[in-house]
Amino acid sequence: MDDLFQAHAALLEKAVAASRERGFWAAFPENPKAYPEGAASAGKTAFAALKGQAFDLGGEGEGARVGAEVSPFGPALGITYAARSVDALVANAERAGEGWAQASVEQRVGVALEILARLNAESFLIAEAVEHTTGQAGPMAFQAGGPHAQDRGLEAVAYAYAEMSRVPGAVRWEKPMGRAPIRLDKDFHVVPRGIGLVIGCATFPTWNSYPALFADLVTGNVVIVKPHPAAILPLALTVKIGREVLAAQGFDPDVLQLAPDTVEAPLAKDLATHPAIGLVDFTGSSAFGGWLRETLRDKLVFTEEAGVNTIVIASTGAFAAMCANIAFSLSLYSGQMCTAPQTIFVPAAGIATDEGHKSFDEVAAGIGVAIDALLSDPARAAAVLGAIQNPATLARIDEARGLGRIVRDSAALQVEGARTATPLLLAVEAQDEAGDEAAYLEERFGPIAFVVAVKDAPDGVARATRAARQKGAITAALYSTDEAEIARAIPAYAKAGVALSVNLTGGIYVNQSAAFSDYHVSGANPAGNACMTDAAFVASRFRVVCVRRPAAA
Amino acid sequence: MDDLFQAHAALLEKAVAASRERGFWAAFPENPKAYPEGAASAGKTAFAALKGQAFDLGGEGEGARVGAEVSPFGPALGITYAARSVDALVANAERAGEGWAQASVEQRVGVALEILARLNAESFLIAEAVEHTTGQAGPMAFQAGGPHAQDRGLEAVAYAYAEMSRVPGAVRWEKPMGRAPIRLDKDFHVVPRGIGLVIGCATFPTWNSYPALFADLVTGNVVIVKPHPAAILPLALTVKIGREVLAAQGFDPDVLQLAPDTVEAPLAKDLATHPAIGLVDFTGSSAFGGWLRETLRDKLVFTEEAGVNTIVIASTGAFAAMCANIAFSLSLYSGQMCTAPQTIFVPAAGIATDEGHKSFDEVAAGIGVAIDALLSDPARAAAVLGAIQNPATLARIDEARGLGRIVRDSAALQVEGARTATPLLLAVEAQDEAGDEAAYLEERFGPIAFVVAVKDAPDGVARATRAARQKGAITAALYSTDEAEIARAIPAYAKAGVALSVNLTGGIYVNQSAAFSDYHVSGANPAGNACMTDAAFVASRFRVVCVRRPAAA
Repeated sequence: MDDLFQAHAALLEKAVAASRERGFWAAFPENPKAYPEGAASAGKTAFAALKGQAFDLGGEGEGARVGAEVSPFGPALGITYAARSVDALVANAERAGEGWAQASVEQRVGVALEILARLNAESFLIAEAVEHTTGQAGPMAFQAGGPHAQDRGLEAVAYAYAEMSRVPGAVRWEKPMGRAPIRLDKDFHVVPRGIGLVIGCATFPTWNSYPALFADLVTGNVVIVKPHPAAILPLALTVKIGREVLAAQGFDPDVLQLAPDTVEAPLAKDLATHPAIGLVDFTGSSAFGGWLRETLRDKLVFTEEAGVNTIVIASTGAFAAMCANIAFSLSLYSGQMCTAPQTIFVPAAGIATDEGHKSFDEVAAGIGVAIDALLSDPARAAAVLGAIQNPATLARIDEARGLGRIVRDSAALQVEGARTATPLLLAVEAQDEAGDEAAYLEERFGPIAFVVAVKDAPDGVARATRAARQKGAITAALYSTDEAEIARAIPAYAKAGVALSVNLTGGIYVNQSAAFSDYHVSGANPAGNACMTDAAFVASRFRVVCVRRPAAA
Repeated sequence: MDDLFQAHAALLEKAVAASRERGFWAAFPENPKAYPEGAASAGKTAFAALKGQAFDLGGEGEGARVGAEVSPFGPALGITYAARSVDALVANAERAGEGWAQASVEQRVGVALEILARLNAESFLIAEAVEHTTGQAGPMAFQAGGPHAQDRGLEAVAYAYAEMSRVPGAVRWEKPMGRAPIRLDKDFHVVPRGIGLVIGCATFPTWNSYPALFADLVTGNVVIVKPHPAAILPLALTVKIGREVLAAQGFDPDVLQLAPDTVEAPLAKDLATHPAIGLVDFTGSSAFGGWLRETLRDKLVFTEEAGVNTIVIASTGAFAAMCANIAFSLSLYSGQMCTAPQTIFVPAAGIATDEGHKSFDEVAAGIGVAIDALLSDPARAAAVLGAIQNPATLARIDEARGLGRIVRDSAALQVEGARTATPLLLAVEAQDEAGDEAAYLEERFGPIAFVVAVKDAPDGVARATRAARQKGAITAALYSTDEAEIARAIPAYAKAGVALSVNLTGGIYVNQSAAFSDYHVSGANPAGNACMTDAAFVASRFRVVCVRRPAAA
């Protein structure tokens, strides 16, 4: 067994420090140019070699296989994965768990850090897998699917390590009692909760799964990864690399297993309700997230679910830059981000700007024009929008057209074979103030956005924060030139448990969440029952058992 | 507003360090002699003055009053408390919560530490209140109800402060981007989860409530304390002192409220299910704990419930000292501790000891004789046993007599007016090995214990750890002279999530749990869903919301 902990100790130390300081820090470079020459083309080659083949995770045997992934950019992947029964997965996990629970914290952390390092080295292959399952454009698939996801995994390791480090190993307890002090030797054991189930999503299969996967692993829980049937490959590659590291270190590779399934025969419910599963992490719909939360009463359940992210525009000192910034947020990955804004509140009487007064219609039109400008170059449009992951999203756009006045219509890009759609922007300026909440305060996942007239800025803030409390929200934005107004708004957003970005312009967007700095999901509104990047996300994944005995004289 | 944080900073620093080191440390002296002369008699006088009166929490008005506490040592207390409706309690809490959420972490921690200091100064009064509601004997009521409970409250403050301290206040985030780095100013806000409900128990009203009460307070959650109807006074005194400190610092005293109720008209369910309640802490029966866990799906619920604590006697090098140690553990507060052992597994063929081979019957008899010896002096018996808190426990002893062969019968002490009972010790040496589990593996709260014949020591360990996994257990003990046997047993106890004490003799007992060192309840078996003394107990009581905006140039 190698001393992987020591090998990666410097990285871990930096990660622990970064997660406390929360300034900018990244372990894994997001710039493709920082990687070895030829790595990108090697990734493409490796991806091409996987297509149309049986994916080899090791030890599969000759049983049934599943897999029907189709790239949102066109071709079916033709990759199959060994099917596994719930009973077989659990039996394997329980067997592997015995040794994993006995491993030291340092051994487990070392394995996790080595897996992350090897994942990083395979970032281009994983990027291809992410691109051709999620529909993310290449540059985003690389960053979000590769280094950014790895940073989030590392962040979870850092949190978990910090928490476990606070539990001493062996201590001498000596209580003064007059002439004869009482001396006990105490050993504190970090014990796992059970088997961890990580249920992946179709849009960010690695970025949204890595925190739970790595938090479970280092706290001693073995992991079953149940990918979304439409995005198996990124997590199959992850599990394969993990199993290789585990086996090389003498651990049972079934510490980390893949549970591929199909839409027709889903495994998630049967896995989640199996008594041996102690922890469940889920990213996806509120319907299934709610089912998990209600059904799994005595398990640890961490969810990231749906929400409606809002922007309030009260005033701005940079109208054009604001519109450009919002246009990018609405367009990036065609609005298929849990952090993308959907509903923009603007006073019915318009707003003050650096370009003079702008009416409600002028604000809406300004955002629409900015979207047009952003997407005017076809290559840039493709690189920003990517493709639409799920055909249902196209249908949703069609249905949404009737929910308001169309400021800017959605349209497909001219990209052969790809499923694409530019943002649909609707205005709601109802007779009854603020119109039909059922239209714009239901989550409409994808490139669908509303500009909604409100009485004034405080009304907008009140509606935005109420929506966050009631419907859930992961992000919110506010544009205002009035510092007093901003100061008054902040406690309302804090109470609503939603991260707030104020007056963003330029190259930073409300839908971006930076590892080691931003807390992703608050856990304080219906968009999720947990923050995915804090101590609470890791601290209850393990328990401590003390063994004490009289100290030898 | 005083700088209470600064005033108590040295104490907090020591507490944070102690909770990491987990050696012996206590903030509040357990020796009554460490307190000012006259404090004990002043406590008695103050208690006498409260009896037969309407308890004044401030601002009660003329409404209905409740309260029917009767001392297990005899007299009714005759104290009444202002009744409060659920709606009034919640409305008060919501109003008070606005300001409390805005207070800084340091302000809230300072208030908590000041409350603890004032509680400590009133330890003798609180001891009287604990003694005459729970039936604990005077010395125990002082220690467990006073300084030990205060230490546990302080421990929770230390944990919560450590976790909140990891969240920076304001940071500059600067991402290198070639010529134009992106600079954001970020503010991180610690936000509460809602209103905390703390449901107290009748045996350790302060010791079991303080961790939750103080963890909630310092993380920004206002608190409603719902005492057990039989033990209101200790928590009424606590809440009164807390409200005085809050008011003196300019906070709404309703940050901390008392919700007294009656057996006939209980408030706990209505309070727990109120949508404004975000956190519930409960100590008590598995029936109600289970109901809370199953019903309150989207609230934070921390429970300490029932369990069956076991001892396995494999062999011993100190037979007499072992028997004396176990006898004390069974007798202390008449077995009415969540940490008291109930079931003692002994090999049917007997064990090796320093006094030669002892048969199963000789081991059982040895423990019985040790109990007799411990309780032979009436004054010492009264000081060890205290009184029986609940008349139902006497009935339970009667019913238990038929569950095995009586090794040592229970009997009342000759104490005028007090409800007392010495331990009942039963032997189970069934025809079918290990007899009827329904007899000795159901929790039988009170001075009821079983010595159960098992095949051999490994069988005993297997049964003990299985019982912990299935029925729950907070403590376990093992006596063995075989180091290899001990080493083999430890992982089984760790997996069962139960704290293990090995070969205890002398002045330390399996049912003692030391603040800042022992983790009380593991959260890893049915005896409770949480550890009451770790980071996980506090980390999810608050959430973090980030507000970010472009940095000024």
